[in-house]
Amino acid sequence: MNTSKLPKMLYGGDYNPEQWDKSVWPEDMRMLQLAGMDIATVNVFSWAMIQPSEDSYQFETLDAIMDMLHQNGIYACLATSTGAHPAWMARRHPDVLRTDFEGRKRKFGGRHNSCPNSPSYRLYSTRIASKLAERYKDHPALLLWHVSNEYGGECYCDNCEAAFRIWLQQKYGTLDKLNEQWNTRFWGHTYYDWDEIVLPNVLSEQWSSNRTSFQGISLDYARFNSDSMLDCYKLEYDALKQHTPDIPVTTNLMGTYKPLDYFKWAKHMDIVSWDNYPSADTKTSFTAMTHDLMRGLKGGAPFLLMEQTPSQQNWQAYNTLKRPGVMRLWSYQAVAHGADSVMFFQLRRSVGACEKYHGALIEHVGHEHTRVFRECAALGEELQKLGDKVIGARQSSRVAIMYDWDNRWAVEFSSGPTIALDYVNEVHKYYDALYQQGIQVDLVSFEDDLSSYQVVLAPVMYMVKPGMASRIEAFVKDGGTFVTTYFSGIVNENDIVTLGGYPGELRNLLGIWAEEIDALFPDQTNRIIMKESLGSFGANETFKCSLLCDLIHSEGADILAEYGDDFYAGMPVLTRNQFGAGQAWYIASSPEASFLQGFLGELCKQHHIEALPGKQPNVEVTRRDKDGIGYLFIMNHQAGSTVIDLGSETGINLLTGQAVSRQTELAGYDVMIVEIK
Amino acid sequence: MNTSKLPKMLYGGDYNPEQWDKSVWPEDMRMLQLAGMDIATVNVFSWAMIQPSEDSYQFETLDAIMDMLHQNGIYACLATSTGAHPAWMARRHPDVLRTDFEGRKRKFGGRHNSCPNSPSYRLYSTRIASKLAERYKDHPALLLWHVSNEYGGECYCDNCEAAFRIWLQQKYGTLDKLNEQWNTRFWGHTYYDWDEIVLPNVLSEQWSSNRTSFQGISLDYARFNSDSMLDCYKLEYDALKQHTPDIPVTTNLMGTYKPLDYFKWAKHMDIVSWDNYPSADTKTSFTAMTHDLMRGLKGGAPFLLMEQTPSQQNWQAYNTLKRPGVMRLWSYQAVAHGADSVMFFQLRRSVGACEKYHGALIEHVGHEHTRVFRECAALGEELQKLGDKVIGARQSSRVAIMYDWDNRWAVEFSSGPTIALDYVNEVHKYYDALYQQGIQVDLVSFEDDLSSYQVVLAPVMYMVKPGMASRIEAFVKDGGTFVTTYFSGIVNENDIVTLGGYPGELRNLLGIWAEEIDALFPDQTNRIIMKESLGSFGANETFKCSLLCDLIHSEGADILAEYGDDFYAGMPVLTRNQFGAGQAWYIASSPEASFLQGFLGELCKQHHIEALPGKQPNVEVTRRDKDGIGYLFIMNHQAGSTVIDLGSETGINLLTGQAVSRQTELAGYDVMIVEIK
Amino acid sequence: MNTSKLPKMLYGGDYNPEQWDKSVWPEDMRMLQLAGMDIATVNVFSWAMIQPSEDSYQFETLDAIMDMLHQNGIYACLATSTGAHPAWMARRHPDVLRTDFEGRKRKFGGRHNSCPNSPSYRLYSTRIASKLAERYKDHPALLLWHVSNEYGGECYCDNCEAAFRIWLQQKYGTLDKLNEQWNTRFWGHTYYDWDEIVLPNVLSEQWSSNRTSFQGISLDYARFNSDSMLDCYKLEYDALKQHTPDIPVTTNLMGTYKPLDYFKWAKHMDIVSWDNYPSADTKTSFTAMTHDLMRGLKGGAPFLLMEQTPSQQNWQAYNTLKRPGVMRLWSYQAVAHGADSVMFFQLRRSVGACEKYHGALIEHVGHEHTRVFRECAALGEELQKLGDKVIGARQSSRVAIMYDWDNRWAVEFSSGPTIALDYVNEVHKYYDALYQQGIQVDLVSFEDDLSSYQVVLAPVMYMVKPGMASRIEAFVKDGGTFVTTYFSGIVNENDIVTLGGYPGELRNLLGIWAEEIDALFPDQTNRIIMKESLGSFGANETFKCSLLCDLIHSEGADILAEYGDDFYAGMPVLTRNQFGAGQAWYIASSPEASFLQGFLGELCKQHHIEALPGKQPNVEVTRRDKDGIGYLFIMNHQAGSTVIDLGSETGINLLTGQAVSRQTELAGYDVMIVEIK
Repeated sequence: MNTSKLPKMLYGGDYNPEQWDKSVWPEDMRMLQLAGMDIATVNVFSWAMIQPSEDSYQFETLDAIMDMLHQNGIYACLATSTGAHPAWMARRHPDVLRTDFEGRKRKFGGRHNSCPNSPSYRLYSTRIASKLAERYKDHPALLLWHVSNEYGGECYCDNCEAAFRIWLQQKYGTLDKLNEQWNTRFWGHTYYDWDEIVLPNVLSEQWSSNRTSFQGISLDYARFNSDSMLDCYKLEYDALKQHTPDIPVTTNLMGTYKPLDYFKWAKHMDIVSWDNYPSADTKTSFTAMTHDLMRGLKGGAPFLLMEQTPSQQNWQAYNTLKRPGVMRLWSYQAVAHGADSVMFFQLRRSVGACEKYHGALIEHVGHEHTRVFRECAALGEELQKLGDKVIGARQSSRVAIMYDWDNRWAVEFSSGPTIALDYVNEVHKYYDALYQQGIQVDLVSFEDDLSSYQVVLAPVMYMVKPGMASRIEAFVKDGGTFVTTYFSGIVNENDIVTLGGYPGELRNLLGIWAEEIDALFPDQTNRIIMKESLGSFGANETFKCSLLCDLIHSEGADILAEYGDDFYAGMPVLTRNQFGAGQAWYIASSPEASFLQGFLGELCKQHHIEALPGKQPNVEVTRRDKDGIGYLFIMNHQAGSTVIDLGSETGINLLTGQAVSRQTELAGYDVMIVEIK
Repeated sequence: MNTSKLPKMLYGGDYNPEQWDKSVWPEDMRMLQLAGMDIATVNVFSWAMIQPSEDSYQFETLDAIMDMLHQNGIYACLATSTGAHPAWMARRHPDVLRTDFEGRKRKFGGRHNSCPNSPSYRLYSTRIASKLAERYKDHPALLLWHVSNEYGGECYCDNCEAAFRIWLQQKYGTLDKLNEQWNTRFWGHTYYDWDEIVLPNVLSEQWSSNRTSFQGISLDYARFNSDSMLDCYKLEYDALKQHTPDIPVTTNLMGTYKPLDYFKWAKHMDIVSWDNYPSADTKTSFTAMTHDLMRGLKGGAPFLLMEQTPSQQNWQAYNTLKRPGVMRLWSYQAVAHGADSVMFFQLRRSVGACEKYHGALIEHVGHEHTRVFRECAALGEELQKLGDKVIGARQSSRVAIMYDWDNRWAVEFSSGPTIALDYVNEVHKYYDALYQQGIQVDLVSFEDDLSSYQVVLAPVMYMVKPGMASRIEAFVKDGGTFVTTYFSGIVNENDIVTLGGYPGELRNLLGIWAEEIDALFPDQTNRIIMKESLGSFGANETFKCSLLCDLIHSEGADILAEYGDDFYAGMPVLTRNQFGAGQAWYIASSPEASFLQGFLGELCKQHHIEALPGKQPNVEVTRRDKDGIGYLFIMNHQAGSTVIDLGSETGINLLTGQAVSRQTELAGYDVMIVEIK
Repeated sequence: MNTSKLPKMLYGGDYNPEQWDKSVWPEDMRMLQLAGMDIATVNVFSWAMIQPSEDSYQFETLDAIMDMLHQNGIYACLATSTGAHPAWMARRHPDVLRTDFEGRKRKFGGRHNSCPNSPSYRLYSTRIASKLAERYKDHPALLLWHVSNEYGGECYCDNCEAAFRIWLQQKYGTLDKLNEQWNTRFWGHTYYDWDEIVLPNVLSEQWSSNRTSFQGISLDYARFNSDSMLDCYKLEYDALKQHTPDIPVTTNLMGTYKPLDYFKWAKHMDIVSWDNYPSADTKTSFTAMTHDLMRGLKGGAPFLLMEQTPSQQNWQAYNTLKRPGVMRLWSYQAVAHGADSVMFFQLRRSVGACEKYHGALIEHVGHEHTRVFRECAALGEELQKLGDKVIGARQSSRVAIMYDWDNRWAVEFSSGPTIALDYVNEVHKYYDALYQQGIQVDLVSFEDDLSSYQVVLAPVMYMVKPGMASRIEAFVKDGGTFVTTYFSGIVNENDIVTLGGYPGELRNLLGIWAEEIDALFPDQTNRIIMKESLGSFGANETFKCSLLCDLIHSEGADILAEYGDDFYAGMPVLTRNQFGAGQAWYIASSPEASFLQGFLGELCKQHHIEALPGKQPNVEVTRRDKDGIGYLFIMNHQAGSTVIDLGSETGINLLTGQAVSRQTELAGYDVMIVEIK
């Protein structure tokens, strides 16, 4: 979807009128319009309705919904409904049911419940997508296809097992190659026949979701499972495209959701969309990072905020209400990071089943005189005024953080050195250090081009895929600054150790050798002691570090800081290697936040990368640009008001129409979008 | 059983002589008599003995036991033995074995292990009950039938699945109705054939015992499962009644045990009996509440204390000994709340298997020279002296607390707003507030008549069943005071939300609208600030509240207190609505104990409901009445002695024979039963 | 193996060259020699390699390995490779796969994965052992057979079920006897046919690994499972012995591993060997106790340290590096307690799968310039110098602690009185009290001869097996001092209570009766108050005790101390009964460490059992003797140096060659072996 051609930010959300009597619909339309909405995601869970049996289809209700939307000036984000199969299908074609990690064949129930290698599921899901495309291809309401819903989970059935063997044959060609890359001679697991391979779950190689005897098979299963679901998506995608080549297709992703390699998925999506459900105690920088990750999936292209709750969720432990202003604030946070839509789950609350206590535009009371509705309507009005100003605008970052699903899987499957290593958490530490300083970041894959960045961070780059090392070396040679950490450069793409000394393929670039890796207990720390001053750090200044401590030796790198404690006190903990025109840094442990802020701040300073204006504690700032105009988003993430200092920057606050410059007061949870020409 | 015709309080317990060599029996008889016992529950787990194979029955041992009991002046509470099926039956008829929540077919083992919809179990359990009734119908020892034992658990086998579909057909008539009431259009679960419905467990709709995708099916399964076991009970009941229409029938219940709807069960029991196993750290008011719930099952009729331990349990984590005096104290606590018996599990400790470290009248040492035996014998002597004084006496309460199993299931299946909401715990907060003030309470079902009460409390009345709202309205109109809380009036009997604004059907009565429900994290609180003085509360007095906070608006109700914090500070938290001659109160959050005590104390005061005399901290007081005589039970639940002040009340302490009035000392863990004429 | 004939301490470890390209092998040999190694455990997980299909065997690689070892002066500890079956076998003969505790049939994966009652596994494992023995019987490298690997786990398949019934028939003869000893009349579990008996797991009698309805069946299953694996071991043992009657056979044990009764196993092992994997926070006295237990398995004979890590483990939560010196220190600790070898897992780190982050002599870097290698090589050199000095030397202890697997199983299956009772932990409290005072201890089975000891401790001797009571009585009569504790003497070997008063068969010996057993909550304690002075304890001195408190009465025993608190304050807690020429002590609760140290110290003093010279806090001392020469091991388990006072003892420190006497400084983590003539 070329979002830059939209007249305004899309505003709307999931809408399930088929769950209601038709008498309610006109009221829905009135209220959607009252709220300034222009898009509705429909047909998400209607498969059982539109295909009541094997060979019959009933589109009357959906027809009526589509027509009604159109008549009321509302676009349809039309879902293919395959996120949950009908009960009759489960009974007639039990192959659609999954087998779980414990090896249990499931029965009908839940959603996101179809085996991705079920012949029946693939047949019927593709067929319904095709039927929908054929029927609605020329419908004026149709703006966007929404394939299935929140793909996820895993299946361990016999069909998956057979498909896994084929997937492996395609990957490895020969069993010899597979035996080598899985190192099956360890524990005598050598396979002599493809059919000897069984899926890795609690009945075979794994004893929990993260614990496995053989990382190779578990890692490949994770890829296979992601690919299997992607295949299901692609089958529907192709079916849709056959009838509507020009209608963009998406499916709603889930941020840092672990089981699916979204970088791989995004290649097959016309536009990325995702569902943002922070908890009341989620850090705002974590949400920001997740938005940036979603934007990074397609190289910085704007994305859609497909779902968020207007107020409350139902599935968290303690479902706190979003405080007044917070829904608006978080909506703009999405836009600030690249969203070209603000959409909700859900427009009308259901009366029964497990999501009835999930917030909605239209609450159970049924009228518009609620806080939640008022806030939604006010936002709708604002977005209307905002027009197409920001649509299609892009962020421009000079710092990138490398992020990778394969790497995460491998890190978290690792047996040793510590169970406390959480990849996303470690990445977030680096992200947060920049966020706190108002420095904009892109999240890029292990395969993305790095040439547009000055500083590239790769926390816990445990896995080095083919070609990566030379690409990073080229980046540094050309003057870039590269930072990586402990437990990096250890394995190849199949979790086979690169022999000859850690950090393996990165050793030459980094100019160090990591001889040992010490794991600290959760209550233990070591110290980073600066050997010389660096930016704002004085010589001998000390910081805490924890989690893992690589015991490294310099092989040419400058030693900037040393450990302060234990038998490796005096060994390097922070090194910098001059490499061509650039520098490659190694941080041998997991430092406290103040270290990362000072250190990364200094790197940015060296590259003249400056904080966005207006940044201060608890205030987030981002910038999007389009056609030579900058849009500065300034978000006050605290209940109290504060005074923003824009420095020399001036512009118009698009949300108030007022000119702003220098000192401007910003209310609690309030937002400014400053247009800068 | 017309317990009022008994010559004295029944005293005895579970007795399993068939586990012992007959040479031990005479010693048993000697010791039971020494302990003053007159009833023994026999044949509880003897099915394998009395029916050693499909077609053979051997009653010789049981005959001998029955005869021996009679010869020694001991009544038999004769169990039907169907609480655990024989091993041969499990092997021959595997349909008696259950399938568990994880979908695993069980093998032979444990107890309470029979599928309630197993044709074999129903056939054989009914047949053995019939055989027993036929054989012992005229036996002089037979006083009472004890069907099976501690019914409980769940089964998810194919027989249950088939039976569930029939149960549903009977309830809903049509699939359309079922689809509507389960809201199956949500997530596209529409059923087109009854056979598409599968049992809700971890393989289908539920992901843990309390978490479900569809509350409707899970709630119906809970009802169905309770009904299935009740059917088993009723089959045995009918078989017994055919031969012994005049012998009362019971089965031992388990207090607040969640899976069985005891209000429904009690309709089919001639007398309620239950097993009381508090832990050393169970609050005495919790035990008191449970006794009151058991008494409430049959509208206040006396019940039997069927089991308690003489000293120690075996299945708790830390099986503390009951301190000297505590067994007696807790025995009288049962009587104080309506029990007409004091019975133990067990009379003689088993030598092997999992209950051998459970306390018994006759310990492993085998003689009577033990602390436990001495305490039992002393109590036996006391009960002998007490005669029939209290038998059949009833409590007279002017305050009722509404309690309901369906409501509990629905509350605890709810996805949102908080996982911290524990129905029994919330009910107990209200109970405890009255208990601490010496005000007697009845626990009544959602269907019981309320006309005899002045004050009715309905904490977390989430579910409003058909007709309830108008019955409560009538109660208030007639001058009653009704109190309910946050998260009330939300759904109908199938967990479908009552649209139009919370608290739904109760909105008119309460004169409020609850717009939103905020969930607090466990470490969060809000404040209740009194707007004006109320009873002992001064204006501006403040109290903590937590868990959930309804954001309510008055629609006519007086606002007595407001929230003190957060964005809803100043919104009502305590309201009172004049309705006819009475008042309907709403407490919008879960207040701390001091608030509830003061508030409920004031309501009682308004109705001239006074504390029972003698009440003081750690001392419990109840009153039973019979034939114009009052029996005041005064129980000192602390190790140290205290002085009881009876005020103007005087009478005879039946346990000492001494007259008491005004100031009377009561030793640690001691009890008085003051007869007041 | 007559280890006393070895020229020196064996030094080496697990070596898996078949996982590597042959080009690496010469480098391995160079480095092993550089490290002074002389033994390599090979073929541990090579079954799939040497038997690639049902009827084919390929020994070429193993031949080459054996030849290479020999050519490089390295012995082979030749494993039979049956610790993990090949994938093809799992596919062809699924009976080799286990069924787990949850009743789930497993698929191929992991290791230690074969059903011990699988006909296929028994056939093929015996056959491969036989083939190996036939092929290598005359190979000059062959020093020792290593059967399978770390036997363990459990199986619940139908083959096991059938075998269990036969095992039971052999044990009990008749169902009547079984029914009696399992007390199946409890809960009506009487069996009328052997085929009615099913394995006790989560589908039948158990609800978790430690919780069972019937202790009898669960205890017998534990024995049966241990015996089943022992049968597998014995089948291989016999196959090996047929070809190589003079080559010693071992299998590597795992210390206090619960499921296998190692005392029973050791009877069938020529030499005990075990794998020692303490965590960074394991107490050194716990490791010491475990070594002593392993030495005790064959009545004090030296054993082999088969595995330890050179530095890091991979499977712990936080895999701390062994600090410099600690690997050497812990190696000598093994030797100090009776090991005649120092062996590692592993000699070269694997490149893939779950143990690649487990330490190794040859790390991933591949060269010898690592801290770990240097420490290993230094130790190798030291052991070379040490020669055969200590080989075959034995410890001489006058104190024994009784330890028993059956007892542990029974204690931990017990339902009541507390879940907090951990048998090994309680035994360790007694061990540690002696360890802290430098008093050497043997761990002996419940069947071992006690006549060589002066003091015998039996903590939590819950189970008294046939003949035990009279053997202990004879020991005491002859002047011995016996100490047992709360929860002792309760049951027979089938967990049937000995009636007539606790401690049952020990009651006469101890002169007490335990009337009740109180369980304390984890935060509760009672007090031990000395009635009179005893050794270093003054009268009225008090100590804490916790966990369980037996309420005992003296029946002739002297009361040395009484409880200080609760209703049993003043009852005995420490008693001593004169019995013949000796004394039998009872400690009725679990005391704090200072009590046990003072009390056991006093008992030793009474028997003139003195501390080994050099003992001080954090310094461990043991002594081995051979041919009239004593070897005093003095180990400094702390980072800092300390001064050792040897008193009047003098000798040569074999590790430095220097004479030592009186005050000698010992560096942090350093060791002395003082040769005393």
